[in-house]
Formats: sequence, structure tokens, C-alpha cells
Amino acid sequence: MNSVNPKIAIVGSGAIGSYYGCRLANTGADVRFLLRSDLDAVRSSGRMRVQLPQSEIVVAAPQVYGTPEEIGPCDLVIIALKTTANGVFDKLIRPLLKEGTLLLTLQNGLGSDEQLAELFGAERVLGGLCFICVNRTAPGEILCIEPGAVAFGEFGRPISERLRAVVALFERAGVKCSASDNLAELRWKKLVWNVPFNGLAIAAGGITTDKILASPELENQVRALMAEVIEAAAKFGYVIPPAFIEKQISSTRPMGPYRPSSLIDYLDGREVEVESIWGEPLRRAKKAGAAVPRLEMLYALLKRLTMRSQ
Amino acid sequence: MNSVNPKIAIVGSGAIGSYYGCRLANTGADVRFLLRSDLDAVRSSGRMRVQLPQSEIVVAAPQVYGTPEEIGPCDLVIIALKTTANGVFDKLIRPLLKEGTLLLTLQNGLGSDEQLAELFGAERVLGGLCFICVNRTAPGEILCIEPGAVAFGEFGRPISERLRAVVALFERAGVKCSASDNLAELRWKKLVWNVPFNGLAIAAGGITTDKILASPELENQVRALMAEVIEAAAKFGYVIPPAFIEKQISSTRPMGPYRPSSLIDYLDGREVEVESIWGEPLRRAKKAGAAVPRLEMLYALLKRLTMRSQ
Repeated sequence: MNSVNPKIAIVGSGAIGSYYGCRLANTGADVRFLLRSDLDAVRSSGRMRVQLPQSEIVVAAPQVYGTPEEIGPCDLVIIALKTTANGVFDKLIRPLLKEGTLLLTLQNGLGSDEQLAELFGAERVLGGLCFICVNRTAPGEILCIEPGAVAFGEFGRPISERLRAVVALFERAGVKCSASDNLAELRWKKLVWNVPFNGLAIAAGGITTDKILASPELENQVRALMAEVIEAAAKFGYVIPPAFIEKQISSTRPMGPYRPSSLIDYLDGREVEVESIWGEPLRRAKKAGAAVPRLEMLYALLKRLTMRSQ
Repeated sequence: MNSVNPKIAIVGSGAIGSYYGCRLANTGADVRFLLRSDLDAVRSSGRMRVQLPQSEIVVAAPQVYGTPEEIGPCDLVIIALKTTANGVFDKLIRPLLKEGTLLLTLQNGLGSDEQLAELFGAERVLGGLCFICVNRTAPGEILCIEPGAVAFGEFGRPISERLRAVVALFERAGVKCSASDNLAELRWKKLVWNVPFNGLAIAAGGITTDKILASPELENQVRALMAEVIEAAAKFGYVIPPAFIEKQISSTRPMGPYRPSSLIDYLDGREVEVESIWGEPLRRAKKAGAAVPRLEMLYALLKRLTMRSQ
């Protein structure tokens, strides 16, 4: 990240990857998109487009590629794959590496940081948690309903100069950013919301967050699941105050008939990130001796409900 | 039950009620069926029929009625309504009472004994737990796949002479019977199976018991839910040995793709007995101080999944 104009690869050009990639490209950054199913369509349209609540960003002639070899070594690789695709890390990322290449994962849940560290070296890994509402509506077409913010952190290290440089890059692209000395704590904190709402939305029959909160019994399960996640996080020294629970519930209420990302995946018949959002947190919680009976049952139900061939 | 040929009413002539009613009528007992939607069809066909695994019972010209007033006071009232219909107890049962009328509920779960006792006097109430696989395939047509057995008990009292008389009546009708000094313990014991299997069959997406046991995670939840029910029962002094869990699981495995009764109701769009199988046990367990987090979550999910208008 010492380059004046760093070469950036976007691996996983779904909604999240395309959105940040387009915003960065829009500021003149050298952004290379790795595409798969959308490659031909974007090549022939010759553009990618982000619709924002009040404006739009059009990237004319985006640099799109079908293989990481064509992109070659980069300064920064932004990873926005679904965690269900983490098995392709080695194949897709290795060709993008050189000395000092940074890997920024914008993926959900737990596990990606460690998998990237294991494969490519812990010293390369940064993480960003996206609080955003964005959908891919067609190849190269991204609809952003709520731009939200990104919380950045180093993997297992405090904020560094290079992290600040990445944050500055995103800020120049108009993204609201924050940085934390504790990426893992950020991840657990995000799970406090994702575990109950993403999970119960599926397990209770494919319902939006307002319907979850309209049931006193399910609202109690939201609280109880949040308390389990907080208890598990505490076992690792991440202290999330219990008042966080009420704050999360009261900020969810005005969201109305909101469809958590996992529910959208589920209803559209796409893979759900069951392992990174429920499986890995469950395994870590149990290993650390936390009592997480509801998380365990929710995971068992979700694993079965999202099975590909029944 | 002192009569030589007691007058028996069947309230709730679905699969269970019709099955035992026909078996009793087949031995010459004076059985009066209270019908609703099937009344005209059975009147015009002039028969009710039970298909057994190796034979069939045909009751020609069954005594069928549309109102309890037409039946009038009975010696024994056999109640086989869905527990979701318990709100009609007073209307349907009061006209069938005289001094000494016995009320035998063959209903599932917890709560019916107490509701009958509250309305009509605890001294009238007997219970029977049906371990049977039986379906109503058309008006007056009953298909019995597995005749199983009935376990009888007095409500809150040890085995009595009159209970023995009821058991004898069923035995003469070819029903395998047992009697217990502890009806409530029998009910909790039956819940050890019903709570996990009926519940997870619905919550895991409408799956049969073999699919539940094919998932190691769900099988673990079966065990954990069974342990919660056993813990709750223990709070009331009903001691169910932990070995009962393995016995239940290993007897379920050879049942193959079995659809628990609640799953059949759910898939057919009929009301599910959520309160008697999960709600009432949950409320009693919590009141008694048992830790039942999984039962609580399962109840919350089932209550929402079986909501009539979503």
C-alpha cells in the first residue's frame, strides 16, 4: 500500500464487491474486477453501475477479468466472496500475490480471517465489516438502499499505518469508515445481530425482521440468542455490555419488513453462509465452554433447512 | 361403569375416536359417535370401516349424531378431539353427563385432564395415551397401520376398579392395554418422544423421523430436547431414567420415513397441537424451575410456523 495508485483486485464481484469496487474505481483507483457469470454481460455492456439512494455511479469500461492470472499481482486484494466459496481462496488469490500484497476480507461471520492467514500468512490479513444494504439486480447493476459504513481492523493486531491508508482509500471513495484495534471483537459484535435475526428469519418460515419482533416468543428468543453470543464473546475477552441487546432490538424495530441477507439467499435458493455465521461461532463458543443451547439448535435447524438436495 | 352394557359417546370422531369407537362397537358395545363434517356422508353410506394391517372391521349402521343433545347422558364419554378444539368441551360434553359419567380423554400432551377436571369435576376424569398409527382416509374410513397399545390411568389417583373396567372394555375390543398409577408421569414420558420428533419434523422443514436422525446435529438436538423434558418431569417427581433417551432413539430408527402426527397435521394445513405438546409443558417446566432453553425456542418457532394467517 505504498504505491501512490495501488493496484486493487476485487475477488467476488457480487453486490458487496461490485459496490466498493465501483466506488473506488469512481475516484480513479486502479480496480480490477474478477468476474465469473457476469463477465460476458459486463464486457458487452461496457459498464458497471451503482444506484445510490439519491444518485448513481457509472463506471465506464471497467477493468474486468475472468481469471486471477490475467489480473496478476496486486497491492490490495478485496475479498467479497460468499464464505460458502472459501474453498476457492487458494486458486483465486494466490495469482494476485506479491510481497506486501494486503488481503482485505469483507466477508461475514467467523473463519475467513484465519483461513486467509493460514493460506497466505497472517501478516497480510485485514478485515472490514460492512453495515450496508445492497443488492445485485442484474450483471453489473448494483442497487444500494442504505450505504451504511465499514468498520476496519487488522487481523490480530492493533490499528496500523497501512490500515489507515486503506481506510483513507475508502473514505476518498465516499464510504463512511471506522477503524478498530480489535477486529475479532467487531466480528462477535456483528454476530449479536446476525445470529438471531438472520437465523430466525429462515427457521421461523422465511419471515422479515418485523414479523420476528411481532411475536413475543420469537422476540424473547432474539434476546436469548444475543445473550448467548455475548456470553461466548466474553469467553474470548470481548466484553459486549448487555445493554447492547436492547439497542440492537430497538434499532431493528424501525427497519420494518427487513430481509436479512441470509433470508434473501435462502428465498432465492442460493447458498446460505451457515458455517461462518452459526457453525464457526458455535464451535468456538463450545470449545471455550460457553453455554449456547439455542445457537446449537438454530445451527442444526439451519444446516438441514439449507441443505441443497433433500 | 356399573352398567352391563355401558352407553358410550365418542366426542371427536377423527382417526383415533373412530378407530376405538368402531372396535368397541364391533364387540356389541353401545357406541354413539358425535360427528360433524362426516355426518351426512356416514349416514348415507350407512357404515364405518377400519382397515387393519391384516383384516378389517365394518360397523354397519353406526349410531351417528350431529349434536350431543341427541345422544344424551352416557356412562362413558371418550374424548378424542384435537386439543386445539378444547374450547368446545363445555358445549359438547355437558349434555352427555349424568351422575357417575366417566370422561376418558385420549388426547395428546398436557392440559386436557385439568381442563376437563375444572369444568366437570376431577373425580370423573381418566386418561389414555394412544401409541398407535392411524389415519382417517375418507368420511367413516379409518386406516390403521399399527394398532399399538393404550396406556390408561386415573387423573391424580392410582388404578381403581372403574379404571380396570374401562381397560377390560378396551381389551375385549382387541386393544392392547396397560394401566398405570401415574397418568401424569405417562404423559411426560410420551412427551419425551413427541417434543423432539413432532417438533423438529416441522421446524426442520417438514421432514420425516429418518431424516432427523440422518443429521448428526439434529439427532443431538433430539437427545438434548429429551433431556430437557426429563429434567422438567423430574421437577414434578416423575423419574424417567436417562437410558430412556437411547431406547427412544433406537426404537425410532427402524420406523424409517415416519411422519409424526403433528407433521401430518402441518403438511395437510390442519391445526397443530402446539399448546398441549410444547406450550403447556414449557409453561409448567419454567414454573417449576427447569432449564428448557431448546424447548422454549422450539415452541417459539412452532407457534409462528403454524400461524393460520401469516
